[in-house]
Amino acid sequence: MIRIPFLISVFSFLMVYSGYTQKQHISRIEPPNWWVGMSFNEIELLVYGEEIGMYSARLETYSGVKLKGTKTVLNKNYLFLTLEIADEAQSGTLNFTFSRDNQQPFSYSYPLLQRDEARKKLKGFDSSDAIYLITPDRFVNGNTRNDNVSGLMDKANRSDKGGRHGGDIEGIMKNLDYIKDLGFTAIWLNPVLENDMPKNSYHGYATTDFYKVDPRYGSNELFKEMCMDAAEKGIKVIMDMIANHCGLEHWWMKDLPSEDWINQWPEYTGTNHRKTVILDPYASKIDYRQFFDGWFVPSMPDLNQRNSSMAKYLIQNSIWWIEYSGISGIRMDTYPYPDMYFMSDWTKAIMTEYPDFNIVGEEWVTRPAIVSYWQEGKENPNGYNSYLKSLMDFPLQNALVNSLNNEKTWTSSWTYLYEELGQDYLYPDPLNLVIFPDNHDMSRIYTQLNEDVDLLKLALVHTATVRGIPQIYYGTEILMKNPGTEDHGIIRSDFPGGWEGDKVDAFTGNGLTDKQKDVQLFTKKLFNWRKNAKTIHKGNLMHFSPKNDNEIYVFFRYDDSNKIMIVLNKDEKDITIGLNQYEEILGQSFSGRDVLSETEFENSSELFVKAKNALIIELEE
Amino acid sequence: MIRIPFLISVFSFLMVYSGYTQKQHISRIEPPNWWVGMSFNEIELLVYGEEIGMYSARLETYSGVKLKGTKTVLNKNYLFLTLEIADEAQSGTLNFTFSRDNQQPFSYSYPLLQRDEARKKLKGFDSSDAIYLITPDRFVNGNTRNDNVSGLMDKANRSDKGGRHGGDIEGIMKNLDYIKDLGFTAIWLNPVLENDMPKNSYHGYATTDFYKVDPRYGSNELFKEMCMDAAEKGIKVIMDMIANHCGLEHWWMKDLPSEDWINQWPEYTGTNHRKTVILDPYASKIDYRQFFDGWFVPSMPDLNQRNSSMAKYLIQNSIWWIEYSGISGIRMDTYPYPDMYFMSDWTKAIMTEYPDFNIVGEEWVTRPAIVSYWQEGKENPNGYNSYLKSLMDFPLQNALVNSLNNEKTWTSSWTYLYEELGQDYLYPDPLNLVIFPDNHDMSRIYTQLNEDVDLLKLALVHTATVRGIPQIYYGTEILMKNPGTEDHGIIRSDFPGGWEGDKVDAFTGNGLTDKQKDVQLFTKKLFNWRKNAKTIHKGNLMHFSPKNDNEIYVFFRYDDSNKIMIVLNKDEKDITIGLNQYEEILGQSFSGRDVLSETEFENSSELFVKAKNALIIELEE
Repeated sequence: MIRIPFLISVFSFLMVYSGYTQKQHISRIEPPNWWVGMSFNEIELLVYGEEIGMYSARLETYSGVKLKGTKTVLNKNYLFLTLEIADEAQSGTLNFTFSRDNQQPFSYSYPLLQRDEARKKLKGFDSSDAIYLITPDRFVNGNTRNDNVSGLMDKANRSDKGGRHGGDIEGIMKNLDYIKDLGFTAIWLNPVLENDMPKNSYHGYATTDFYKVDPRYGSNELFKEMCMDAAEKGIKVIMDMIANHCGLEHWWMKDLPSEDWINQWPEYTGTNHRKTVILDPYASKIDYRQFFDGWFVPSMPDLNQRNSSMAKYLIQNSIWWIEYSGISGIRMDTYPYPDMYFMSDWTKAIMTEYPDFNIVGEEWVTRPAIVSYWQEGKENPNGYNSYLKSLMDFPLQNALVNSLNNEKTWTSSWTYLYEELGQDYLYPDPLNLVIFPDNHDMSRIYTQLNEDVDLLKLALVHTATVRGIPQIYYGTEILMKNPGTEDHGIIRSDFPGGWEGDKVDAFTGNGLTDKQKDVQLFTKKLFNWRKNAKTIHKGNLMHFSPKNDNEIYVFFRYDDSNKIMIVLNKDEKDITIGLNQYEEILGQSFSGRDVLSETEFENSSELFVKAKNALIIELEE
Repeated sequence: MIRIPFLISVFSFLMVYSGYTQKQHISRIEPPNWWVGMSFNEIELLVYGEEIGMYSARLETYSGVKLKGTKTVLNKNYLFLTLEIADEAQSGTLNFTFSRDNQQPFSYSYPLLQRDEARKKLKGFDSSDAIYLITPDRFVNGNTRNDNVSGLMDKANRSDKGGRHGGDIEGIMKNLDYIKDLGFTAIWLNPVLENDMPKNSYHGYATTDFYKVDPRYGSNELFKEMCMDAAEKGIKVIMDMIANHCGLEHWWMKDLPSEDWINQWPEYTGTNHRKTVILDPYASKIDYRQFFDGWFVPSMPDLNQRNSSMAKYLIQNSIWWIEYSGISGIRMDTYPYPDMYFMSDWTKAIMTEYPDFNIVGEEWVTRPAIVSYWQEGKENPNGYNSYLKSLMDFPLQNALVNSLNNEKTWTSSWTYLYEELGQDYLYPDPLNLVIFPDNHDMSRIYTQLNEDVDLLKLALVHTATVRGIPQIYYGTEILMKNPGTEDHGIIRSDFPGGWEGDKVDAFTGNGLTDKQKDVQLFTKKLFNWRKNAKTIHKGNLMHFSPKNDNEIYVFFRYDDSNKIMIVLNKDEKDITIGLNQYEEILGQSFSGRDVLSETEFENSSELFVKAKNALIIELEE
């Protein structure tokens, strides 16, 4: 490129006074703003623009704010500015001047916003909540005008199971009442940030812009509006985030700040998924490295969180979204795959900023010894503390399905669940685990249970009553399924009624089968009851060794004032069980009411349980 | 019964001077003797005899020995005497006088023996050993005269799979050289104490006399002789003990000292086998109690180790056998089923007496989080410490079979073993775990592996080279199997050649198939090599994430001076693997020799591994 000094000078001179010209030198500053009054008050701005690294930056005097340092990297299109924002700093506009030898300096205005004081007390989801998981592209197409957006590669194609189907934030907003009526108090959306990938981008896990809601879902502003609307209805919003990787089409992939911005290998190297390497006393160094630094898939570059600017970028990004939108929680994708010390820093920074917040990490293994490694307070042999309050309880999910699918023998059936819960001593805080019959990455629970409605109901009852934070995937309530395939695009099928012209409408009930209506009603009854069942939220748990060839499983939730008895019978036949075996918790009398059938019991000495049926008995003292 | 005082008096008078008359009042004193110079020097004698509890006991002055106390129980046929034996006491005979109002006193002589000083330094089995497990009734019938013993109920019947077949201690003694030649340095015998049960008594787990070797196996003296013979050949003896239960025909079952001598229930109540109750935060009290105090099977009364005399009885019994016979280790049956605080006391008492001894506990679960609970040094949430140095590694056994039997996919095959070993951080001392492809309670490994000789060899190589103390069940070396059944009597079939007239003789090789001969030779080569492979005994382990669809598994044993590379290929096809992926341990050069094929390698850069084959390469530095 031939330099034309004079022209550029004149141009630069003009730029100082126009927003337009800012764009010429600086295409991005991220985060796009910050706030005063934050705990996280030393931020690093990533400044991106042609040869911006050749400029020196100066901050115009601003009370309480200091430009603490600047950092350049190999790629001169990047400049990193560290700002220190003192407690006493007021909101306003920071003015930077960028100058360079033989060039006209130019300035850039950076907004420092007033903080919404309520953010400090953002209340995260907890065991009083029930979460409805939504894949935004597949729930409701609330706005057909954003199905295709110019400039974004992947176009709507509802006939392609891996294509974009048009679901969006507006669709969710329009149906918050449906979710509320079902009894849910939180929604977790699969990622909504821009995924400008050429294909198969609907799932959202290949971020191409960390500061922008995908326009096909809506906008940052709309996302924030959804959070506010949801809050008004008593629904918390959990945002899905990914710190391990971005999409291959992320803007920085075309112009990396430095070689070590992402984890690079001589040839493509995937992660080995060996989560055991962390504590394995025999692990090789190469396996350890490959687990953390190998790529998830070829289309998702593995971010190098050991690069301090990358680390800061990701932490700020998460705090930015919380502060900006007022979400009540984060679901962190592939929690163990990024650098684990970074994940600890990331979690700690967020929890320091929002002490009542909650974050749930995904660690998809069925060994509680491994999952529990990541929960705050765990005394790990290597001293590691992740500061993470919640994890996805994959071991319990696995045990639930095994319990329901297994034949009766002396070691199977409910034994799986009974023994799995027996491992809870491994967790510092089992009440804070998210429990679920399925999620977006596995077969629909109805399919896993071979389309057995009775077993599905048992799964729902267990999930709604055992310790933890229940999460149900959208459509479970109407028996959505994926027979004969484990294709993710089928698992994440469109919710009927979410698209104009749908013959079946789960919102109105039109076209639903009786079975579907029955389970929808069952879900509604169960979770609406749970909403106010404080003993389920925080009460103690006592369970009894499964009986009758492990086909009967009885447990209690209880606290100082209440007791709830849950009876799960998965046998093909009705069973009458004696109550004296539960004397240590029941005492001598037994009176109460089954929440599901509304049957009343008075001074009963035994209990009749129908084949493949559950009882949830609120006991009278 | 009409009392005839005069006659009895005269009789009693005579008794003082005759062994015969002792028997009239006292049918048993247990332990039958003790030793001077023991750490365990406060012993409680169980004295059993008609109305002996009505007598008071006095010890004739004996320097350094004190009768510290006597205890009576509800059943007056029992008297418990506590003796304190000071360090300075000398061996000799203790003379007790028993007296009772209106009765002639009588005396009883109790031997206090000189200790064999070598016992203090009894060396337990450890990871330098390889154990050959024998079911004594089924190995070799060395003495046909003891096949049937008058007074013992269960008679020899070789045609009954659950009957007694006549194998005995003499049979083992005669074949110690066979075991030694195979490369084993220890034998573990299923229990040899008297099992005078009406049927199915051959397995030995229903003790009817804790101080007597079953006469159908031999005698106490012969057992001791076997231990000495074995020691001379460099073979340690591991005695199988059971503290949880006895046989229903145990002599005390006809005349219990007290109701709480065993764990009694209103009606027969089996253990629930719920090993999780111990740490399960939600376990009910009744399940907890039933686990420990429920009976193993109806024919085996559950001993109440919370009865202090029972506790002392069991501890003294174990120490007595060690001191008497000079065994090198104990395998404790059903380790978690007795009262766990008792088990801790029992183990501690033995390990205090014999600091270099070893005990391996059976805890048959496949969760290392549970097995590790029982190993000495584990920091358990409830503060429990069992003092137990070794456990049977059932999780690894399970993983080994799963690895060998599973098809190749990205989550199976060698992954089971790789991930299981990755849990070793849960154990305070993984090197002290006993590892095994099978044992007497499960299908023969050859059957578990669907009679695939190549897979069996891989199992043997893994067991012989990975960390731990290998244990092989008798007959594995000649492909003993139990096709189509899991009947214990078939699993524990007679070793061919152990009975006169056997058509096949595994000792001479007569009648063995080529396959059997090949595996016998393979076992011999492998374990004889292991005998001197110090790096296998105590070296470090490093393993690499399985490759080639998890069909190749490579690990190293290494110490400051040696490295051994183990390559396990379970693929149906030959594979050539590059060596640069192991650079962190191999360095730049690769020379060595495969122990199995005796192939030499010099400066190789890749390694050819035949289909379903193993390499054990001793590397040259």
